[in-house]
Amino acid sequence: MADGDIKAGAQKIRTLQCQSCHGKDGVSKLPGAPNLAGQGQDYMIAALGAYRSGERKNDIMNTIAKPLKDADIADVTAYYAAIQLTVKVPPP
Amino acid sequence: MADGDIKAGAQKIRTLQCQSCHGKDGVSKLPGAPNLAGQGQDYMIAALGAYRSGERKNDIMNTIAKPLKDADIADVTAYYAAIQLTVKVPPP
Repeated sequence: MADGDIKAGAQKIRTLQCQSCHGKDGVSKLPGAPNLAGQGQDYMIAALGAYRSGERKNDIMNTIAKPLKDADIADVTAYYAAIQLTVKVPPP
Repeated sequence: MADGDIKAGAQKIRTLQCQSCHGKDGVSKLPGAPNLAGQGQDYMIAALGAYRSGERKNDIMNTIAKPLKDADIADVTAYYAAIQLTVKVPPP
């Protein structure tokens, strides 16, 4: 797992307004925005990198990710990855 | 939320081997594969559509998504969306 400071991530999430769509608890506020709670950090780092480079297209995320430094990405993903997840599957 | 049959989705997930990377419970088995447990169905439908068309690039997902019909996408996303999620944020 990449480095990243969870507390710094929590602060950067407030500044970047991630929580407006993805929730402070990582549970999405909008149908088009994914839950990030407990998401794997490697996956989120790759996703943010792809939004930053423009390889992955989303108007909002391309704008937000463009100025991010690698350390910012490490911090915000450390925060969302640190949210503990409990799941319950539907009955068979 | 799109239509989709949860039980048909569970069967298609087995056939498509989604669980090898994303888990039967939607919790990822690989660092590069996202958790899908309780993920929003609209988001997952858009993601699978983008993999199917090639707009979003991932060798494995482009191959798996290419032959899927809309009904397959509705079913498998209905299953993963139906997994109940409980989250616990890190202490401030």
